[in-house]
Amino acid sequence: MRAAIEQARQGGTPFGCVIVKKDAVVVSAHNTVAQDLDVTAHAEINALRKLHAQKKRVDLSGYVLYTTCEPCPMCMSAILYAGITTVVYGASINQARQYVPQIEIASHDVTAKSPHKALIIPGMLGPECLHLFEEFPQKSGK
Amino acid sequence: MRAAIEQARQGGTPFGCVIVKKDAVVVSAHNTVAQDLDVTAHAEINALRKLHAQKKRVDLSGYVLYTTCEPCPMCMSAILYAGITTVVYGASINQARQYVPQIEIASHDVTAKSPHKALIIPGMLGPECLHLFEEFPQKSGK
Repeated sequence: MRAAIEQARQGGTPFGCVIVKKDAVVVSAHNTVAQDLDVTAHAEINALRKLHAQKKRVDLSGYVLYTTCEPCPMCMSAILYAGITTVVYGASINQARQYVPQIEIASHDVTAKSPHKALIIPGMLGPECLHLFEEFPQKSGK
Repeated sequence: MRAAIEQARQGGTPFGCVIVKKDAVVVSAHNTVAQDLDVTAHAEINALRKLHAQKKRVDLSGYVLYTTCEPCPMCMSAILYAGITTVVYGASINQARQYVPQIEIASHDVTAKSPHKALIIPGMLGPECLHLFEEFPQKSGK
């Protein structure tokens, strides 16, 4: 999660993500909605697309995704389609909505309605992740 | 919707999408998950990304999106983030799940939980759109 927080800071946004296998970071990404002028360029989507391109396959089972903020329904659906095994997040959607408007569907609600499943671990370094929204108040874009 | 169905057939998938302004098609796309090896390459996401690139802006309000199948929560979230004004779909998620596993969150449920809103018009050429799942049974990828 420290690497995901570092990604967020590098991008000047509250949203950073890394995907890990066997305790090694495989890809890193931050939110680039504002710079790419693309609403789909959330940190998690950017990271998944990088990993798809690197591995040249759709199935990303066996990977663990760390993200500074709970995945929104767009990102959580993509994570489930890709077969990511475990999702670890910092700040929750419910906390983030104090700073940025959110679609209020929790990641576990998306998983509950999905034929694909992932283990979700909330609140890792939560206060530090939430503080990113105060560090980067204008560039959240999520 | 006829143009969206044609897009789906061109791509050999049940999923086609066009985005329209003043009754003119501005961009067209189909699902390319299998060819791009990218779970995010649904028809609607591909169409939104094309329009972002063409218009060089995040805000896509004023556009109408036609899609052969009700947008999944990934696509519906992206549509709402982009500010698309109206969504018209053919087959519903509930119908499509007979053919392809679906995350069972309806587009109106995503909209209901969102600070961004869109008008959703269901069932346009529904039977013809649903029939695409029988025409292209192996390449659905959604």
